[in-house]
Amino acid sequence: MEQKNLTTTIIGLGLIGGTMAWALRDQGLSGHIIGVDNNEEHSRRALELGIIDELLTLEEAVKAADLIILAIPVTAAAKLLPELLNMVDHQVITDVGSTKRGLVLAAEGHPRRGRYVPAHPMWGTEFSGPDAASRNVLEGVVNIICDPADSDKDALSLVEYLLTSLGMRIVYMDSLSHDTHLAYVSHISHISSFALANTVLEKEKEEDTIFNLASSGFESTVRLAKSNSATWVPVFKQNKENVLDVLNEYISQLRKFKASLEKENWSYLNELIESSNKIRKVLDKKQGEKQEQKKVTPNK
Amino acid sequence: MEQKNLTTTIIGLGLIGGTMAWALRDQGLSGHIIGVDNNEEHSRRALELGIIDELLTLEEAVKAADLIILAIPVTAAAKLLPELLNMVDHQVITDVGSTKRGLVLAAEGHPRRGRYVPAHPMWGTEFSGPDAASRNVLEGVVNIICDPADSDKDALSLVEYLLTSLGMRIVYMDSLSHDTHLAYVSHISHISSFALANTVLEKEKEEDTIFNLASSGFESTVRLAKSNSATWVPVFKQNKENVLDVLNEYISQLRKFKASLEKENWSYLNELIESSNKIRKVLDKKQGEKQEQKKVTPNK
Repeated sequence: MEQKNLTTTIIGLGLIGGTMAWALRDQGLSGHIIGVDNNEEHSRRALELGIIDELLTLEEAVKAADLIILAIPVTAAAKLLPELLNMVDHQVITDVGSTKRGLVLAAEGHPRRGRYVPAHPMWGTEFSGPDAASRNVLEGVVNIICDPADSDKDALSLVEYLLTSLGMRIVYMDSLSHDTHLAYVSHISHISSFALANTVLEKEKEEDTIFNLASSGFESTVRLAKSNSATWVPVFKQNKENVLDVLNEYISQLRKFKASLEKENWSYLNELIESSNKIRKVLDKKQGEKQEQKKVTPNK
Repeated sequence: MEQKNLTTTIIGLGLIGGTMAWALRDQGLSGHIIGVDNNEEHSRRALELGIIDELLTLEEAVKAADLIILAIPVTAAAKLLPELLNMVDHQVITDVGSTKRGLVLAAEGHPRRGRYVPAHPMWGTEFSGPDAASRNVLEGVVNIICDPADSDKDALSLVEYLLTSLGMRIVYMDSLSHDTHLAYVSHISHISSFALANTVLEKEKEEDTIFNLASSGFESTVRLAKSNSATWVPVFKQNKENVLDVLNEYISQLRKFKASLEKENWSYLNELIESSNKIRKVLDKKQGEKQEQKKVTPNK
């Protein structure tokens, strides 16, 4: 399949939209990239950085595109998706949102539902905006495609071809399961970090003390607290039930630590820590895989 | 001051004891390093790796030393410290424990209290044992010295000289404040991570799903859950009151997130996230400082 002349429209020129654009450009998968963004500063910057080739209005950009990547916050994306479906005929629409169920429901029953391929690259940083967009970071990253049977075959094939060409690992999942799993392995991490930052900022009024004493462990657990509310409020909004479910479990796990301390039940505390150590197996497997990738592609 | 011929005894040949030994050796600050450890495997490995020059019994090792570094779990350290003070005359004892109050109290009133210099390097990883000991990692790291007025002048001077020679930044603090601050900027991070790992392991029974979906954000927040219970139960034991205080605040901060979700109060959720974003200022300052150090010492 020759896709060099693919024209891509990126709606939302932030961290993820920009990173996808760089990847398509760097791998020669898209010859022309059009940007659409309400934020004038982001638009200007994306053009300046060379992430996009031109800025167009939404209507013009959709008309000119073969592929449309929706990369705005998930509630706005769910609102825009039906409008996009109204506008397309041959074009393929995909997205990068951290929740999938709300988008799928927004497109449900639309006569052109098949043009949409719900996707979610498992990559991100705590930064935002076009300057945060990164190059050469998507290889080996999992990209989840949801409800593949509901997409047109040619649309699904195009997205699969592109993601595979970027070196991403495709995992298929239904959109309901996606949102449940993501609450566990991503959304709760963010709440954990936000609340930790608020705790420390509340309790430790002397900023210099935090600065002097903060170890790499603290930095690691609190890093996600730099994340953008414009991205994350919509995620929690769209995935409310699952997030609440995991948050309740998290609070209940913390209460076990609290109880073990209050009762000075040190063997119970030991058990709690040793049980959490089992996560090592998963993390080490992941680490091993990353190193394996580095070995295979030494020039990347 | 010429300290090349300093004989150092490291009690506890794990992550931190081993890292201190490497640093003293690599900087030419100690010509002979003696190891003491109950764990035969650790002892053998430390000798094999070249972290120490010889293994001796505690009594022999104390007698032969100019400097003794206590690097065993904090409850064991607090128990051993008075015995060490009984054994020394000219020797200087320092330690590396993550809590300080219990050790200071254990030494209080001892006729040779002045030989002890309570210290805490703000460095660590989630690994343990002599193989986890690292080289060239202490430069620029804060090392807290507690209650300096209670140490003999020559003992304090020696420890200050050594830490400064290792490129560490000394911060002075009373031992009570140390334990309060550390509960905020380190101990709660560990509980947050342990409980997060337990939550995910509890809720997400399919390990492969965690493995496939875990993003770098998840890995970052859960990394500390690999930490050793043999180190951390004693820390929580010694710092129980402060840790409980911060843990209660943490649970109460998480309840705010829960309430904002339950009530669908998105502007409150937005406020909570934006308030946590203020931690960025502290973290970015720290990051900037690290880069500054790299610039200044390009060969390290």
